[in-house]
Amino acid sequence: MAEELKKGLDGVLVAESALSDIDGDEGRLVYRGYDIEDLARGATYEEVLYLLWHGRLPDREELDAFGDAMAGERTIDEEVMRTVRALAEADANPMAALRTAVSMLPAYDPAPDDIESTDREVTFAKGRRVTAKMPTIVAAFTRVRQGDDPVEPREDLDHAANFLYMLNGTEPDDVAADVFDQALVLHADHGLNASTFAALVTASTLSDVHSAVTSAVGTLKGPLHGGANQDVMEMLKEVDDADMDPLEWVETALKEGRRVAGFGHRVYNVKDPRAKILGERSRELGEAAGSIKWYEMSTAIEEYMADQKGLAPNVDFYSASTYYQMGIPVDIYTPIFAMSRVGGWVAHMSEYIEDNRLIRPRARYVGPRDLEFVPVDER
Amino acid sequence: MAEELKKGLDGVLVAESALSDIDGDEGRLVYRGYDIEDLARGATYEEVLYLLWHGRLPDREELDAFGDAMAGERTIDEEVMRTVRALAEADANPMAALRTAVSMLPAYDPAPDDIESTDREVTFAKGRRVTAKMPTIVAAFTRVRQGDDPVEPREDLDHAANFLYMLNGTEPDDVAADVFDQALVLHADHGLNASTFAALVTASTLSDVHSAVTSAVGTLKGPLHGGANQDVMEMLKEVDDADMDPLEWVETALKEGRRVAGFGHRVYNVKDPRAKILGERSRELGEAAGSIKWYEMSTAIEEYMADQKGLAPNVDFYSASTYYQMGIPVDIYTPIFAMSRVGGWVAHMSEYIEDNRLIRPRARYVGPRDLEFVPVDER
Repeated sequence: MAEELKKGLDGVLVAESALSDIDGDEGRLVYRGYDIEDLARGATYEEVLYLLWHGRLPDREELDAFGDAMAGERTIDEEVMRTVRALAEADANPMAALRTAVSMLPAYDPAPDDIESTDREVTFAKGRRVTAKMPTIVAAFTRVRQGDDPVEPREDLDHAANFLYMLNGTEPDDVAADVFDQALVLHADHGLNASTFAALVTASTLSDVHSAVTSAVGTLKGPLHGGANQDVMEMLKEVDDADMDPLEWVETALKEGRRVAGFGHRVYNVKDPRAKILGERSRELGEAAGSIKWYEMSTAIEEYMADQKGLAPNVDFYSASTYYQMGIPVDIYTPIFAMSRVGGWVAHMSEYIEDNRLIRPRARYVGPRDLEFVPVDER
Repeated sequence: MAEELKKGLDGVLVAESALSDIDGDEGRLVYRGYDIEDLARGATYEEVLYLLWHGRLPDREELDAFGDAMAGERTIDEEVMRTVRALAEADANPMAALRTAVSMLPAYDPAPDDIESTDREVTFAKGRRVTAKMPTIVAAFTRVRQGDDPVEPREDLDHAANFLYMLNGTEPDDVAADVFDQALVLHADHGLNASTFAALVTASTLSDVHSAVTSAVGTLKGPLHGGANQDVMEMLKEVDDADMDPLEWVETALKEGRRVAGFGHRVYNVKDPRAKILGERSRELGEAAGSIKWYEMSTAIEEYMADQKGLAPNVDFYSASTYYQMGIPVDIYTPIFAMSRVGGWVAHMSEYIEDNRLIRPRARYVGPRDLEFVPVDER
């Protein structure tokens, strides 16, 4: 066959989208026309969700109504909590636990999931509920695993602050709440990355919102996607434990053929704009705590990789030390990524199914032909 | 941008594969070079799994060892069973229940799921376990929902016969076991359909087998994919209840703009070879029961659709009346499809990650540009 193989679908356009635009040469990311830096510095996660789902920034009244509705939907059904507890006690992978709990939610969702889900309002209401509940799942899983009881969500806190409250059992200070909210804004959408694309493939059969989000969580789990932020922190800790100069460590790692996590991106040729903002916050958190060692280690590695490999850091590279300095367990960095990106998953699936086309590519057959079947006992 | 939009990825080649080949003009389907008719008539589901995963048909000794290993892995952990019971009691959608239980399995799987799963043997061992356990989940869910206790799997029965035994609590007769086994063989693989492609997208991040199978189950759930076999039976029952001539019913339905389930396929331009074989079995089951009304109704609709619309039936069209005459509840037809197709999902993901490339397409941005951000209280 003369047709070209598009393995990985690099550069293949599978949809039109008004959600996010990435300029990989300029290092620019916009959500619906707004620069990511402006949104990260000026808008909350709830505001960005509203923007992504409804196409424009809300006014104060709309934002408050949206935030209140979501805050009222944070509690998870006791059977889902029972399963989350079982998974924590079995020491399940945190992303596997999140995937399972998200998949279980629709059994207790007020809207049926066995309809053709092409109604925007149903999609967004389900999307809002799953977005509201994911932090409750992640926090409960983390606490049960360390021997603590889950903390009930509080309706008077924002999405970001409430998560930190449920995780730690104490209200976060303003800086922590602000940095975490900003991290959620920065991760909310990013074009047709693998997890978002998985959500589209699932939604394109007119399955349902929870199926699509479940596919996306399982896809984000992989080390070539969301799993990378955890890998970055494990690397930084390894450098720290080895008590080596970071440059020496990286040089040795590269010689040994190891992958240095947090560098390079299919889409960016320059520094990821999200890494720039998170880098600043990582530094601030270090300064507030009296030591910027993680930040300094990170920038040293960044410079080395730029000089030696021509690679720039991606969003995972600075989210790692940011979360670490906030005392968040390393293996829930990827669930936190999911808690944010669910906004983009729901936005993209809703947009795609408005003018749906089942996603069904082909493979080039390279196997044998015309084999004669012989029954098993004659083989 | 001048680049072409490939919505739905129709005809786009995303991988090379030696697994299955479809000739849509000839109505031919082969698995690794063997015609689907030969396999359906001469091989068991276990034999076909071995073929798909290991690249050749097993001899008697290999087949017995493979079947015994799988039969020994049918039991599910009691916490998974506890969640399946909760979902049955909550009257969850059966595919949502299967998706959740499959997602929960790795917490109790002997091999870790947080490794880069590029080892074929690990993939196939995990694949074999999830394939062994899916019928246990589906049967338990169905029984609990109808107020019965789950039936423990039996190691001395084949995969197909054991499922019918767990579902009904009695051993199936030879005809039922044979027809069901044949249905599993016919559904085991079919190129890069949407659910298989969802599994590839998930696996391409080097996530893990259970994540990929979970994505695939949620994708198969949609009415434009696996959900169609259930829709066919609901249509046939509606025709029967209306006490109308099937042709008259279809004519009215088409005039009202309704979709007639079980016709047309992205890949076949002629009759799906699987529909031919299942049509024969549907007739035989009717004859054995003393009434071929479902078969006759189906063939009448088939002829009408061919004449009036130029559309041929797909696999879902005859699996519907086949399963119905076996007494299987209509809403577990799609879970049964999943119980079979998992063989293809595992085969394709293993093949793809051997020479992996992250699947990450792009969207053409059609949204606004350069909007000025105004803080919420100034909007």
